Amino acid sequence: MTDQQHTAKAFDSDLQDLSRMVAEMGGLAEKQVAEAVAALARRDTALAQRITEADTSIDKLQHEIEEKAVLTIARRQPMAVDLREIVGALRLANDLERIGDLAKNIAKRVIALNAEFPPPKLIRGVEHMTDLLLEQLKTVLDAYVRRDISKALSVWRGDEEIDAVCTSVFRELLTYMMEDPRNITFCIHLMFCAKNIERMGDHATNIAETVHYIIEGRPIADKRPKGDTTTIPALRAAGE
Amino acid sequence: MTDQQHTAKAFDSDLQDLSRMVAEMGGLAEKQVAEAVAALARRDTALAQRITEADTSIDKLQHEIEEKAVLTIARRQPMAVDLREIVGALRLANDLERIGDLAKNIAKRVIALNAEFPPPKLIRGVEHMTDLLLEQLKTVLDAYVRRDISKALSVWRGDEEIDAVCTSVFRELLTYMMEDPRNITFCIHLMFCAKNIERMGDHATNIAETVHYIIEGRPIADKRPKGDTTTIPALRAAGE
Repeated sequence: MTDQQHTAKAFDSDLQDLSRMVAEMGGLAEKQVAEAVAALARRDTALAQRITEADTSIDKLQHEIEEKAVLTIARRQPMAVDLREIVGALRLANDLERIGDLAKNIAKRVIALNAEFPPPKLIRGVEHMTDLLLEQLKTVLDAYVRRDISKALSVWRGDEEIDAVCTSVFRELLTYMMEDPRNITFCIHLMFCAKNIERMGDHATNIAETVHYIIEGRPIADKRPKGDTTTIPALRAAGE
Repeated sequence: MTDQQHTAKAFDSDLQDLSRMVAEMGGLAEKQVAEAVAALARRDTALAQRITEADTSIDKLQHEIEEKAVLTIARRQPMAVDLREIVGALRLANDLERIGDLAKNIAKRVIALNAEFPPPKLIRGVEHMTDLLLEQLKTVLDAYVRRDISKALSVWRGDEEIDAVCTSVFRELLTYMMEDPRNITFCIHLMFCAKNIERMGDHATNIAETVHYIIEGRPIADKRPKGDTTTIPALRAAGE
């Protein structure tokens, strides 16, 4: 092998390592999200505690990806599509770290709720949002691994559904809160949980945009399809 | 000037550009936060609209910093402290983009609240949090520009106060909500605004950690001082 072939091979290996690390981080984030909402549904504070502790693994991976990306750029001086791969890995690591953090926050609320748990039917809306979100996350990480542009675009368009379910969850919670002041406390917790999942959906959409950028070299041109996420529609309806 | 001196000079110039861009982004973020809460206090929906539009400038700067950082690493192959400077700029740009986004979300709620504004006394708690947050932000950006480790550490320790005020704001809002169901809608908006500002405080602390990392080459060793941010103390007290 010539020096040049050796260098090119080492660089490909760096890129593959980066890609693998991002995929691993994606898998961890998926697990944290699924388990945080399972802990909420099952009132499993022990599981919730494990989730808050496991968040450090996600943060650690983000730093490792950042270091690897920076060292690869410094050593290999990549151009064009390879540079986009590395920048893309950095961006994905950021969005996945945020998703992990939001899952940890849900877990913290589960621990704190302890004795004051909401009725199961109220949690179903949040579970529905989570199913949609996990589907988005799975698809977009798949799009990244396979460099599949159509999968990335389908995720980019799919965020509106999560926003719509979020609005209906808020509407339901508001009604409950207005019926009886004793419901207010746990309903607020559920609202924050729902908002966290809605934000995770935004990060999944960010990842879709990054995958598009890696493959096409430019951002998705159109304005992002976004439902109203201030929860105003739900709040306004409840006020009528 | 020799080739080597010329290269070193060009690199210093790159680092200075990066630092300047981060400081500019910091200034924009400060402005967005201050104006978002002013819009809330004054019920100024026109100002709120300008804030939501101005967020694109912050996002644009983040991408420019990212590009500049990556190109600088590729061209100059920096090591040690220079590499930390560049990584630090990337991390700061991320935290500042998040702060800008949270300010935009507050502005969106101002627009949506429109006719249903909370009484001024309820907004005072949020304004108090904002004063503390802006002080943190100003100090930490100063710490970055001057590479001042003691300022960075003071910000890192100062986050607990914002968390404490957040808890008391939640307590106050909960009481209001329980007194009269008609208060629930705008109180929820204020809760989300308060939570956004509390999260901005976390990002200011992240920036303090990054400044420490740039100067010292290692993270702040201790566990981060953190008040309970699930708002459980407030919610529990209200349930008694």
